Amino acid sequence: MEFSTYVTGFVDGEGSFLVSFNRNGKFVTGIEVRPSFTVSQHRRNLAILKRIHEYFGCGSIRFDRHDQTYKYEVRSLDDLKKKIIPHFEKYPLQTSKVNDFKQFSAICKTMKENKHRSHAGILEIIEQAYTMNNHGARRYAKEDLLQMVRKMKV
Amino acid sequence: MEFSTYVTGFVDGEGSFLVSFNRNGKFVTGIEVRPSFTVSQHRRNLAILKRIHEYFGCGSIRFDRHDQTYKYEVRSLDDLKKKIIPHFEKYPLQTSKVNDFKQFSAICKTMKENKHRSHAGILEIIEQAYTMNNHGARRYAKEDLLQMVRKMKV
Repeated sequence: MEFSTYVTGFVDGEGSFLVSFNRNGKFVTGIEVRPSFTVSQHRRNLAILKRIHEYFGCGSIRFDRHDQTYKYEVRSLDDLKKKIIPHFEKYPLQTSKVNDFKQFSAICKTMKENKHRSHAGILEIIEQAYTMNNHGARRYAKEDLLQMVRKMKV
Repeated sequence: MEFSTYVTGFVDGEGSFLVSFNRNGKFVTGIEVRPSFTVSQHRRNLAILKRIHEYFGCGSIRFDRHDQTYKYEVRSLDDLKKKIIPHFEKYPLQTSKVNDFKQFSAICKTMKENKHRSHAGILEIIEQAYTMNNHGARRYAKEDLLQMVRKMKV
């Protein structure tokens, strides 16, 4: 069985591409951008997370006390660009999650070009991120974020 | 991309193998056994359900008002035996769901041999079904079911 396409199928159901924002005074924009790729599972399925971890050769697995699941997570921009994104370009997602992936991939590219350190760049990223499906996991309402960035600009 | 292994990956996350029981006086055992294979999705992912439906060439898609999702569902014992089970024998599930599948497959086999129409057979099926993971979707507690069957026997 080809594990690559299995992984895409599994992620299409269970994975998520998320871009979260944290208020952080250390950044010129006032906002830290944190893209992450995550697959969550109940403890009984820890084995499949380990195999996915091994398959991608990056990231880590942690226990999330909040929802009592195990999470395979990749946060390193380098790993996302070099390992995660190329996999899903080669073995494309088949659900509407592909739209999240495309936005996610575009945001990682923008960040790789260091644009998220400018006000114009971060505004673009915020716009992109808020067209993604999984708003629930974000800490701020879009308008509040834009407000924060605008304040920093003055 | 090989769609077969994608389907296994997707089902490992999103599918379920369920055996439900209904009290039904028309049966000698007093109990109707209903195995089903289901994949549920939000409306935005109706397209992937249609592709899975087409891939298996059996079952149907319906809207479930209860949880507001679309469900691809196979209930025909013949289709389960000839189309669904062989797929997952060829492209095995990789999570703990494989245990549900094995019990499910054994129960379908038992039913195909018409054993579920005898008291001994139905008791065996109930025991098997209650070792599966997804108890939540069942209507009766195991002991109540066994009680019903025992009453019919007297």
